[in-house]
Amino acid sequence: MSENKNIVNPSILSGFMELLPEDQIVFNKMKDTIRKTYESYGFIPLDTPVIEKSEVLLAKSGGDTEKQIYRFTKGENDLALRFDLTVPLARFVAQHYGELTFPFRRYHIGKAYRGERPQKGRFREFYQCDIDIVGNGSLSIINDAEIVSVIYSTFKNLGFEDFTIMINNRKLLNGLFRSLGTTNATEVMRTVDKIDKIGPDEVKKELIELGMDENAVEKLLAIIAMKGAPDSIIPELRKMGIDNDEFKTGVDELEKISECISSLGVDPKKFELNLKIARGLDYYTGTVYETFLNDYPQLGSVCSGGRYDELASNYTKQSLPGVGISIGLSRLFYQLREIGLVGKTGHATTTDLLFIPIGDTLNYTLSAAAIARSEGINTEVYMNEGKLGKKFTYANNLGIPFVAAVGETEVQEGTLTVKDMRTGEQETVKKESLAEYINAKK
Amino acid sequence: MSENKNIVNPSILSGFMELLPEDQIVFNKMKDTIRKTYESYGFIPLDTPVIEKSEVLLAKSGGDTEKQIYRFTKGENDLALRFDLTVPLARFVAQHYGELTFPFRRYHIGKAYRGERPQKGRFREFYQCDIDIVGNGSLSIINDAEIVSVIYSTFKNLGFEDFTIMINNRKLLNGLFRSLGTTNATEVMRTVDKIDKIGPDEVKKELIELGMDENAVEKLLAIIAMKGAPDSIIPELRKMGIDNDEFKTGVDELEKISECISSLGVDPKKFELNLKIARGLDYYTGTVYETFLNDYPQLGSVCSGGRYDELASNYTKQSLPGVGISIGLSRLFYQLREIGLVGKTGHATTTDLLFIPIGDTLNYTLSAAAIARSEGINTEVYMNEGKLGKKFTYANNLGIPFVAAVGETEVQEGTLTVKDMRTGEQETVKKESLAEYINAKK
Repeated sequence: MSENKNIVNPSILSGFMELLPEDQIVFNKMKDTIRKTYESYGFIPLDTPVIEKSEVLLAKSGGDTEKQIYRFTKGENDLALRFDLTVPLARFVAQHYGELTFPFRRYHIGKAYRGERPQKGRFREFYQCDIDIVGNGSLSIINDAEIVSVIYSTFKNLGFEDFTIMINNRKLLNGLFRSLGTTNATEVMRTVDKIDKIGPDEVKKELIELGMDENAVEKLLAIIAMKGAPDSIIPELRKMGIDNDEFKTGVDELEKISECISSLGVDPKKFELNLKIARGLDYYTGTVYETFLNDYPQLGSVCSGGRYDELASNYTKQSLPGVGISIGLSRLFYQLREIGLVGKTGHATTTDLLFIPIGDTLNYTLSAAAIARSEGINTEVYMNEGKLGKKFTYANNLGIPFVAAVGETEVQEGTLTVKDMRTGEQETVKKESLAEYINAKK
Repeated sequence: MSENKNIVNPSILSGFMELLPEDQIVFNKMKDTIRKTYESYGFIPLDTPVIEKSEVLLAKSGGDTEKQIYRFTKGENDLALRFDLTVPLARFVAQHYGELTFPFRRYHIGKAYRGERPQKGRFREFYQCDIDIVGNGSLSIINDAEIVSVIYSTFKNLGFEDFTIMINNRKLLNGLFRSLGTTNATEVMRTVDKIDKIGPDEVKKELIELGMDENAVEKLLAIIAMKGAPDSIIPELRKMGIDNDEFKTGVDELEKISECISSLGVDPKKFELNLKIARGLDYYTGTVYETFLNDYPQLGSVCSGGRYDELASNYTKQSLPGVGISIGLSRLFYQLREIGLVGKTGHATTTDLLFIPIGDTLNYTLSAAAIARSEGINTEVYMNEGKLGKKFTYANNLGIPFVAAVGETEVQEGTLTVKDMRTGEQETVKKESLAEYINAKK
């Protein structure tokens, strides 16, 4: 035996999230809910490699992304870990264009990597939960409305009551900027996007530095301060008399989306137009989405995305417009735990029932456990030596709701005595009625 | 817009598996079945970082593993991608020893990485599906029996009818080697482990080179050729008169496990002792497991594992004995697809129902879709322009079983006309009866 007597300190890298069972179970439940919701809308699963060729992953980016990326060589290969799930989607769709059915509706729940400077709530390895609808050549604006419905259902299914989905439109903003005499729409967009961080005064200063005149800036700030229900905002926008086609198309698109909202089953109170939503990423070209938990605005947007004209222009000449959103689940989970909204369930297992054989009852117990499992009850048998108290403590520590200690009496009578650990109640049932009994109470 | 007109060839690295939707759906179904089975036995989920400190991941290993590992630096950190899920478990248990309840039963389904030379069916990124039961100081042999039951349930739930779980015991082998005059049990074990690859003649030659005399080698080869039901093998082993305590303990352990098999609900025909099962890894110290699909022995073992005395001796002085198994899901899926046992389902989506609005029926359709989803039916609405035929082709290409084209008549009458794409049958039902209708037929 090559025993290594040098003890290495067991630790993980800073900036990585690792959960203890109690939290992991909650995290997985959220992940499962998101997946189930995405599937209920007919999104198809994708699972691409975490490692890709650097030339593929970095075909577009530059700047910050390139600095943050985990990039290395192995043999002759220049490799990188994916930093989002959008670039792999673009590569996938371009690569398998001829094998896919369009519109291609895919979801992807997986890990991505960014070597950012560690800070609270920012992780270097994080789960993204993405959906995208990718069209072949064109994609109806109704898809943008459906995305609102997916966001709505997802957060409702996650158990949130009070949230607002806010949308805006890049065409509207671009048209607005142009009508106000801006030539550098991208820079103006980036500046506007920072308004919640730096405040309107600072935005004003920066916009003037970008060459806008003070009047135009005042007008711009007034317009992007508009938010509310579509039937109040849209008529106002039309009344402004901004004579720019892009602006008008943007307003039309917002209106079309808004018209579908209630048919889609979305509570109109949870849906708002908000003219200052801009999104930093430069590939958005139409609708943009952000989602806020109303009681916790400090969390920022918990689900964001938008419409883009060309998903895969780095990899193909095919025109592949799309619309999609992403939930940063690791960050969201961390934040919800910090404010006490998730976690501390007292359940460090998903086991429903623990059997404790006492004396020579192991075979009877094992067969009862096999039956319980076949009836859909997650079941453990405590198989190790120890005092009875210690075995009950095991159940208590893990938060297992039901415990059945099995003695000789039970074996003789073909019964099981089940204790509900939450109430202390105890009941003896026929062996064959156990599953029914637990399923009724769990 | 910073359009990049240099098209990068969209491709992935060789040795990485990426599935198209039809296969991905089957893969995910297998993964879900494994997870559900593991949870039914009370195993707790764990999800550790893919990237760890190199000094932690490589605390023990050397040789081949070190050559295959993806290792790189980022800033001042020496990092590596995990090459299995056992080392991260050992690190986790040592790190969180005081926060865990023992026996700690965990499952972990996740990706691991090895930069092996690419070959058919071997992937550089692969899913492992592991369970382990880790004791604090001691762990009853009954846990080893339960592992057999988990393997049995998993493969049965995956839909396999004809497989054999084979077990052996390292103590038995060690005792046997010693009683035959071997001093180098580890090397003998490694050689014996290769018998199916290189054949008995070559094994004989190598064992003689290791210093065993020919007589002893003959005896050894005769014993390790033994396999079959416990009630035929165990008495034979006892009759051999091998006077070695380790050997006897090994036989006792095999007997104890075998006694529990039928109570655990395992079909005894699917369970065998096989004295040549040795497993290459040197940390196993007791029971070892392999699993074979009887009609496809060429696949090798599809689920393997064993008992170890010290899980985490590189990270802690605590004694943490355990027992566990692993299913290499990426490899298994690939092999099953190669022999035609999985795949080609004709379903490239998990959508149950596609709505096609015709004319001005979008709102009616969207609300019908929202209701269907709330009743558990995965539902899509075809939202893009195009001829009706093209929309039905979309459903056909994806293998969506039900399509409802919604015209003005349906809206007026509050009905939906559903076509079963598998049979061509068409039926008109009340809007509110749709979910019931689909659920009955799907």
